[in-house]
Amino acid sequence: MKLVIGDKNVSSWSMRPWLVLRHFAIPFDETLIRLGRPESKAQILEHAPSGKVPCLVTDSGDAIWESLAIMETLAEQHPEHAMWPRDAAARARARSISAEMHAGFADLRRDMTMTIQTHAPGTGRTPEALSDIARIEAIWRDCLSMYGGPFLFGEFGIADAMYAPVVMRFNTYAPELSDVSRGYVECVTKVPAVAAWIRDAGDER
Amino acid sequence: MKLVIGDKNVSSWSMRPWLVLRHFAIPFDETLIRLGRPESKAQILEHAPSGKVPCLVTDSGDAIWESLAIMETLAEQHPEHAMWPRDAAARARARSISAEMHAGFADLRRDMTMTIQTHAPGTGRTPEALSDIARIEAIWRDCLSMYGGPFLFGEFGIADAMYAPVVMRFNTYAPELSDVSRGYVECVTKVPAVAAWIRDAGDER
Ligand SMILES: N[C@@H](CCC(=O)N[C@@H](CS)C(=O)NCC(=O)O)C(=O)O
Ligand SMILES: N[C@@H](CCC(=O)N[C@@H](CS)C(=O)NCC(=O)O)C(=O)O
Repeated sequence: MKLVIGDKNVSSWSMRPWLVLRHFAIPFDETLIRLGRPESKAQILEHAPSGKVPCLVTDSGDAIWESLAIMETLAEQHPEHAMWPRDAAARARARSISAEMHAGFADLRRDMTMTIQTHAPGTGRTPEALSDIARIEAIWRDCLSMYGGPFLFGEFGIADAMYAPVVMRFNTYAPELSDVSRGYVECVTKVPAVAAWIRDAGDER
Repeated sequence: MKLVIGDKNVSSWSMRPWLVLRHFAIPFDETLIRLGRPESKAQILEHAPSGKVPCLVTDSGDAIWESLAIMETLAEQHPEHAMWPRDAAARARARSISAEMHAGFADLRRDMTMTIQTHAPGTGRTPEALSDIARIEAIWRDCLSMYGGPFLFGEFGIADAMYAPVVMRFNTYAPELSDVSRGYVECVTKVPAVAAWIRDAGDER
């Protein structure tokens, strides 16, 4: 099994399924394509018909693309791991907030792009980005109070992986956050799989 | 179980889970909120914490929001229906193209907004919308040739529901399409659940 990803410093979508594979110790090969170069698109299209990373290539050569579809498929293939919460109501909520991330928060993504190596506190705070942040803080607050933390549904899972690139942005741009959000940001940053991705990003030139 | 939706004429996201519920004959109540009015947002927020429709409210009062999360949850609750393809590789592809729709095609959605009652052939054809259409035609062509039609994975399912609002747009704006795409558009338009939604949209004033 091979996961095709973009640069770890900037490829927020790639980060998500990579974290899940790594956190749950599922063996996989990694193919990293440097984005934003003349040859990037053609390289991606060798694997992913969508022309975007991430893309999981199975041992039989099938492409599975889109971060959420990759993780949903991994969850199905690995029922031994609680990638989604075991409780049905919690799982439905985890899917709701993951799909909300998958389709949404375009303003935050535009105004506070993920660049893990960068430290630029105070920048990027457009009204639109702040409004996205308010919604994200509400999502986190609801989950952490309903399920008691330290992750959104107790243990680290797909929903946390979906929001991990937001955590990276909060580390870079340091917007004002509630104590609850700050605690969650710290907690996610320390997950070994997350720390490994950040380390790899720091090594990129 | 109650599905909170927007106007049938324009609420493309609402259409998707509604079609799945109706097509698979799952009993549900419908709460329709007229969008674009001063009171719309507050009305939606009574049900959906995201402030968007669709939102499924379970009998125990839990909200499940985001079209894709609603349908993934329905598929899980109703294993007796092949909402996703039964074959694992087909299912992974169905999830990939559904997630691609869920997160993508923003240009098509902006330049050819869904308004079922409108007939405006020839309008909306911006280069960006045409480029989205080219990708959608490639997705349809691949699925229809791999699985033999008449729907993307044989029988009507979640992936077809995801693309049904695109079908509505093609009926309204009539962009140039391949024969294969045109056949698929006709086929989806005739699905009884789709026809029922179109009829309801036509009755809206
Ligand atoms: N909705 C997609 C988004 C994928 C995406 O936008 N990937 C970016 C990198 S993070 C990409 O491939 N960009 C390269 C390009 O568009 O040429 C997903 O969840 O996987
Ligand atoms: N990603 C969401 C999109 C939902 C969405 O944008 N819904 C629109 C109507 S189609 C809406 O609620 N608009 C009202 C508003 O934003 O106030 C989903 O898949 O459910």
